[in-house]
Amino acid sequence: MPDGVIRWGNDSPWRLFSLRSSAVLGSTIRPMNQVAPVPSAPESLLDIPTPALILDRSRLEANARRMRDKVERLGVALRPHVKTSKSIDVLRVLGGGTAQVPITVSTLAEARYFFAHGVTDILYAVGIAPVKLPQVADLLAAGCTLRVILDTLDAAEAVQAFGQANRLCVEALVEIDSDGRRAGVSPDDELLVAIGRVLSAGAGARLAGVMTHAGGSYGCRSLEEMEAVAERERSMTVRAAERLRAAGFACPIVSVGSTPTVHFARSMEGVSEARAGVYAFGDLVQAQLGTCAIDDIAIGVLASVIGHNPAHGRVVVDAGFLALSRDRGTADMPLDWNYGAVCDGQTGELIDGVTVESTNQEHGIVTARSGGIDFERFPVGSRVRILPNHSCATAAAHDRYWVTDGQERVTGVWDRVNGW
Amino acid sequence: MPDGVIRWGNDSPWRLFSLRSSAVLGSTIRPMNQVAPVPSAPESLLDIPTPALILDRSRLEANARRMRDKVERLGVALRPHVKTSKSIDVLRVLGGGTAQVPITVSTLAEARYFFAHGVTDILYAVGIAPVKLPQVADLLAAGCTLRVILDTLDAAEAVQAFGQANRLCVEALVEIDSDGRRAGVSPDDELLVAIGRVLSAGAGARLAGVMTHAGGSYGCRSLEEMEAVAERERSMTVRAAERLRAAGFACPIVSVGSTPTVHFARSMEGVSEARAGVYAFGDLVQAQLGTCAIDDIAIGVLASVIGHNPAHGRVVVDAGFLALSRDRGTADMPLDWNYGAVCDGQTGELIDGVTVESTNQEHGIVTARSGGIDFERFPVGSRVRILPNHSCATAAAHDRYWVTDGQERVTGVWDRVNGW
Repeated sequence: MPDGVIRWGNDSPWRLFSLRSSAVLGSTIRPMNQVAPVPSAPESLLDIPTPALILDRSRLEANARRMRDKVERLGVALRPHVKTSKSIDVLRVLGGGTAQVPITVSTLAEARYFFAHGVTDILYAVGIAPVKLPQVADLLAAGCTLRVILDTLDAAEAVQAFGQANRLCVEALVEIDSDGRRAGVSPDDELLVAIGRVLSAGAGARLAGVMTHAGGSYGCRSLEEMEAVAERERSMTVRAAERLRAAGFACPIVSVGSTPTVHFARSMEGVSEARAGVYAFGDLVQAQLGTCAIDDIAIGVLASVIGHNPAHGRVVVDAGFLALSRDRGTADMPLDWNYGAVCDGQTGELIDGVTVESTNQEHGIVTARSGGIDFERFPVGSRVRILPNHSCATAAAHDRYWVTDGQERVTGVWDRVNGW
Repeated sequence: MPDGVIRWGNDSPWRLFSLRSSAVLGSTIRPMNQVAPVPSAPESLLDIPTPALILDRSRLEANARRMRDKVERLGVALRPHVKTSKSIDVLRVLGGGTAQVPITVSTLAEARYFFAHGVTDILYAVGIAPVKLPQVADLLAAGCTLRVILDTLDAAEAVQAFGQANRLCVEALVEIDSDGRRAGVSPDDELLVAIGRVLSAGAGARLAGVMTHAGGSYGCRSLEEMEAVAERERSMTVRAAERLRAAGFACPIVSVGSTPTVHFARSMEGVSEARAGVYAFGDLVQAQLGTCAIDDIAIGVLASVIGHNPAHGRVVVDAGFLALSRDRGTADMPLDWNYGAVCDGQTGELIDGVTVESTNQEHGIVTARSGGIDFERFPVGSRVRILPNHSCATAAAHDRYWVTDGQERVTGVWDRVNGW
């Protein structure tokens, strides 16, 4: 963050004027020459400059507990995907009080951040690009157990060659395609064994296992479909591991997962670990997939009402597509939430039928699904909370969480790592 | 940015292995314990870890010159909207060698950043939320000429009361609705004069003028429509200023603009300043609106090819919705570019008919519009550049620009300010 960013704390010279009570509040900004990247925590959500990402700690804790219980019943290890939260404080909750758990990351920036906070067992679950191998080597040399994934002979050769050139051993998992949606090798493709052979052909690399992500679970609309996708994710990955073992390679890690497939899985036979990420926060997509309820959604964007447009039945808020993201994950689902569901700013209670209909960069247009909007409910200067379609996308727009007790009290500020 | 981020520079202990030539390149990463938030600049795009935002400086310069020439012919001042670039280095190019120019901002984080870099005349062009007035006061007290906008009596009263409570004078412009798209007061509404009255009713505030943004210009599909929207933007804002003047208020600033309306305006009579932002970089939406050519687009996302999926005709790259944004601005335009147009990584040349068809968080799926994709053109480990639908949205995902000479040479690294 550049110079010139003001710490927003509890020692401001300015007197806040309350619009509703006409009282002068005792609030607090540091003067311009005191520069700090992270605001200190005000006591109430009403003191936070908007837009801001807020996190309901008790919902996060309940979501974390539910997933830990689920994987325990399934008899597999949990490797949370931290791409959703990118926060060591959130990971500590996911780990039931400890952050010393295996994790999945989507960027090497996450790997560096979590390793710097003491996490040592990391799976980087995006196909490795050769240009990133020096960054992988940095982490390996520093003592991190970082594993990469790949699904081509070219990448396997690059990893083997880089490891040999630098006297390192890079451990890699082969990505398996279990639903034809994105990446990966089919378990029955000869390429699978050929990749295993390249990874095992020298001291520069090692085949550590197989992994998949059944993104197709997001397209399921019934319990039967969901269970079938989860079972296919499991069985195809286990089959890939068995083929590699039959060809003479050790294949210790068999890693599967997505929040929906782990939630709906009936068996994890042959699987060593389950990966899931978005369960930590939940969102409007997950609520319709059935992995959480709307009342479980742990994050929201706090926004201020900045205008009324009675002619068009619109309330204007100061959270636009940068604060909310452009994600339209519910567009093709039974209930389309547009750019987010609008809740009361202080209590977090859902306001029936009110959504963010459209966005510009820093503007959100709030309307009622049917009938006019009740402007009295949204005075200028009041706050709303907006629940996200997709919490990974929305959280990524923010550099911190304002942690709340569910109501209006702020209990902490947690950072997160963005970028690459 | 948290601890643990490695500087990526020119003194790495690791030897890079080139996939194509089998040569060991002399590249360069700092060891883990040397922590710095911004990488030093490598010499070639081929050394940059992907995804990365790259900026073609000569295209930026040409775009900036074209707009300066345009407003000079129209006889108005230019107040660039820095929400697109959020970079002091870019502003210096927009200002023709100086950053000491009036600017428009979309966040108070931008206001603080640019003020810290010496910019003193700033219009914050999102309706002011009362909770942000202490931040405004910080900037005023530090000597910044920061003006706010508003379009309700409530906001005008809050500004007046806050100014009086703190012995400050907050200058405000009334936002005018010139196309019914977002916010603003109709020039013929009695509310306009009533707001002027509240702003003039005490020493806490001052009516500084009127402003509008004709976002409706983005829906135009012909020169005639575009010229009509530009003329309506001008005439309605001038009419609002005249009504305020007739009611006895000074209204010195008459501010209009969007990149399309400034580009297509035939007259700026009665207007004092034009605002435009996205012209700096251009994008695939602007190219179809006719304000730039595709060859004028100055930014792109550099990505690595990380996989091939021959069964589905897909190339997988490591730029997903976080690096590209979810913006689908061309979805309703004559030519839909999906999530971006794919260009050669080194030359920047457009690869005919190839787009990013879909995205996940860190994956982009690249396909050909018709026929199969030529996998030989996209070896694993090679780079592509992806032109954005909407440069404001795409740039916001990144914290720096890798500045290039248009080809593969990196000539600098420029920061940008994100967040609020």
